Amino acid sequence: MSPYNHLEDHFARIGNLDDAVGLLHWDMSTIMPKGGAGARAEQMATLRRLRHSLVAAPEVADLLNEAEANNNLAPWQEANLAEMRRAQIHASAVEGKLIEALSKACAACEMIWREARPAADFARVRPALTEILRLGREVAAAKAEILECSPYEALLDEWEPGGRTHAIDPVFDDLANFLPDFTDQVLEAQAKSPPARLPKGPFPAEKQRMLGEKLMAKLGFDFERGRLDQSHHPFCGGATDDVRITTRYDENDFVEGLMAILHETGHALYEFGLPKDWQRQPVGRARGMAMHESQSLLIEMQACRTKEFMMYAAPLMRKAFGGRGPDWGASNLHRLYTRVQRSFIRTEADEVTYPAHVILRYRLEKAMVVGDLEIADLPGAFNDGLEALLGIRPPDDAKGCLQDIHWYAGAWGYFPTYTLGAIAAAQLFEAAKKANPEILPSIGRGDFAPLLTWLRTNIHSKGSLQSMPDLLVAATGRKLDPKTYKSHLKERYLNT
Amino acid sequence: MSPYNHLEDHFARIGNLDDAVGLLHWDMSTIMPKGGAGARAEQMATLRRLRHSLVAAPEVADLLNEAEANNNLAPWQEANLAEMRRAQIHASAVEGKLIEALSKACAACEMIWREARPAADFARVRPALTEILRLGREVAAAKAEILECSPYEALLDEWEPGGRTHAIDPVFDDLANFLPDFTDQVLEAQAKSPPARLPKGPFPAEKQRMLGEKLMAKLGFDFERGRLDQSHHPFCGGATDDVRITTRYDENDFVEGLMAILHETGHALYEFGLPKDWQRQPVGRARGMAMHESQSLLIEMQACRTKEFMMYAAPLMRKAFGGRGPDWGASNLHRLYTRVQRSFIRTEADEVTYPAHVILRYRLEKAMVVGDLEIADLPGAFNDGLEALLGIRPPDDAKGCLQDIHWYAGAWGYFPTYTLGAIAAAQLFEAAKKANPEILPSIGRGDFAPLLTWLRTNIHSKGSLQSMPDLLVAATGRKLDPKTYKSHLKERYLNT
Repeated sequence: MSPYNHLEDHFARIGNLDDAVGLLHWDMSTIMPKGGAGARAEQMATLRRLRHSLVAAPEVADLLNEAEANNNLAPWQEANLAEMRRAQIHASAVEGKLIEALSKACAACEMIWREARPAADFARVRPALTEILRLGREVAAAKAEILECSPYEALLDEWEPGGRTHAIDPVFDDLANFLPDFTDQVLEAQAKSPPARLPKGPFPAEKQRMLGEKLMAKLGFDFERGRLDQSHHPFCGGATDDVRITTRYDENDFVEGLMAILHETGHALYEFGLPKDWQRQPVGRARGMAMHESQSLLIEMQACRTKEFMMYAAPLMRKAFGGRGPDWGASNLHRLYTRVQRSFIRTEADEVTYPAHVILRYRLEKAMVVGDLEIADLPGAFNDGLEALLGIRPPDDAKGCLQDIHWYAGAWGYFPTYTLGAIAAAQLFEAAKKANPEILPSIGRGDFAPLLTWLRTNIHSKGSLQSMPDLLVAATGRKLDPKTYKSHLKERYLNT
Repeated sequence: MSPYNHLEDHFARIGNLDDAVGLLHWDMSTIMPKGGAGARAEQMATLRRLRHSLVAAPEVADLLNEAEANNNLAPWQEANLAEMRRAQIHASAVEGKLIEALSKACAACEMIWREARPAADFARVRPALTEILRLGREVAAAKAEILECSPYEALLDEWEPGGRTHAIDPVFDDLANFLPDFTDQVLEAQAKSPPARLPKGPFPAEKQRMLGEKLMAKLGFDFERGRLDQSHHPFCGGATDDVRITTRYDENDFVEGLMAILHETGHALYEFGLPKDWQRQPVGRARGMAMHESQSLLIEMQACRTKEFMMYAAPLMRKAFGGRGPDWGASNLHRLYTRVQRSFIRTEADEVTYPAHVILRYRLEKAMVVGDLEIADLPGAFNDGLEALLGIRPPDDAKGCLQDIHWYAGAWGYFPTYTLGAIAAAQLFEAAKKANPEILPSIGRGDFAPLLTWLRTNIHSKGSLQSMPDLLVAATGRKLDPKTYKSHLKERYLNT
């Protein structure tokens, strides 16, 4: 067997471990009995440590060296090898003990956070958060040296391979300059339109689920290889050929729960569309979290908040809940699904105010990782920052720095991918519509096949063959650029 | 750190891997989308291979040698060390590659069996079964040499540590002699009693579940550390502090589904009661499958098919389903739950005819593993054997050799533990009632605490501190002996 083939075998096993972690994590977030949390943290830590030892094993470094000396690899194999090397660099930078300790510390912190958040009690989780930041900084410092980047970028690189702040900063500064005035204009225009009215409920969870599953199927979700369940925070997880998305149901308001389903379906379609021939290989995985978020936001924001989609979906919604009257018309529902308001909670934010939430977190986490912001000062810095960017100040930490799970689960460097994904989504949807003018009218008839075909061809089936910037250029002809995103916002929120 | 302490750390990680396998297996059997089967088989094979490599690692052998030379270990540590050695002997006998291949072959065979069984099409699964028997024989031969036992016993030893055929054969022969005439007598006596009548349904699954959960809670099931779900075959699985039982619901007949819940609750109580201080250590695990089955059968057969239990449970059943009339009386329900009939399906058999099903399978699997019975001849041998032991002949293989999952999932050597467990359960219940005469009257009031206290003290909290025979002698004063079981059957089925 050639060194490269040896590596394929080895990384297939690593892919299996990743799948196992994905399933245990899904279970933990959906159906695990509370008392299982301690043992689950141990299981995850062991699997992550084993994964680390498989990737960082000295034989892997040797095999990589040998395989890289071979000039006869096909392009997919070359790319696969590059991804293996990337994984090996990340893993070898840190010791297995640290990975295990971090995994356990994150699990412990997350459990405390689950109680601290509803109690708006930051002090309760502060020691645990301080500890995982300490461990996270240790990882960041070790990786930064080898990756030749800043410690923050070393963590960002785990979620967004090749992501660097010099590329992100100008994009985010551009949006941070653009959005405050723009938001004022949107709110002014909105005030002149008829108000959006929430149809009268209740909306039984079971009926929301049935409607959600109907739309998922229309979008192309494969229920033979996936599930829809409930969790406190919607997410897309699971494993190979077993893609699991979740949502939460508010029986007084179906808007959020349904849109979360469509968002997570966008993630799931990416997973379903990854190249079959490269399943469980590094190159067969999705191309980083910015591209992943672009897929969810393309479905949720670009495709499913259009008038076309609402023309199709409004009758289904009305039928699902037995609704009657003008509140169930496509126009009102479209206004409801494109309503803009300054609000505290990121996950509930509209697409106009959303970037402010992300930019704030990006700036804060950079400062925390580099040591410019202490955990003790986080609540104040969060509230000051939101006030400066969005003009509103959280009344407590539940609506402030406690609201998101990310930091409390050790996910430093994840936040920017949301807005990078939103920008990419706007570019991709524009390119798709240009390539096939039938895409938007088809959505109006509930036919997502033209859109899905374009996405599969240009994004999903490429796996990690190219870098995120190259993939985006190949698909849209341009590198990441907030211009299209801004045009999209102007078109949707000012020209209505 | 001492060699012993090193081993404790190492085996805790192995325990975590076992937990992960347990959870993935539970998921596969309950909620996994069908298309995930292939990837799941890969995940399980990888985890099992990693487990194997952790146990069989040369460092473990060295540490065991060093730790065994230490005479200052406490009794629990000594026992833990002995269990580690046991695991190491089993693992080192075979190569990781074989473990992985067997795991994949079993998963593949199980998937084919799932289709072959309803189609009563043995030929469809024959090649896959032949292959896993071939791999199983390879494992058996390798282990037999090291364990100094027969190949069949080497497989039995995986489920029932120390289990040997010279101890099982006379017990089973005794029952095989006793039961045919006894069954005739029981059926004759039963014919003279009023017939048992199944109350009129339907019995909605949701109501069956609610009744089941109520009884589980009464028995002492901890819902903070466990769940009840549905699967095609009831089982008890899951992980540390996360014990998951399943049942299946027939909306026309609640009898089987409810009793399966009580049976699996017996298993779960054992898991809940294992020594907290030794969680995830080999000595902290249950003492083999015969003792495990004794715990489920003690709850299901010994405790919950008594008149006392029915006096308590009948009103709950009646209320759960809104039933009225004499069919819902304790007398009729007790007759229903102790009805004896010769039938084809093991899992539906009553406790009088059940041993015939087990003895048949025990004899057949011994012959298959040693090479005296070819897979091609299994269907005929199965039907001949059932006819000889029970007097009825399966009309097709779905009601014959295809009915049970065990062989098709590679579980050779498991079957005898059911009847060994049934015999042990009779001894244990007798000893418990003698030790605390309040146990039976308490059950009549729905109070299981006296029984559970006795079980926790005498069985559950002991983990794997002693061998199965020593544990049984300590708890009942006698080694395994079918006498009590036979008295129990006579008392319940002839003296009514």
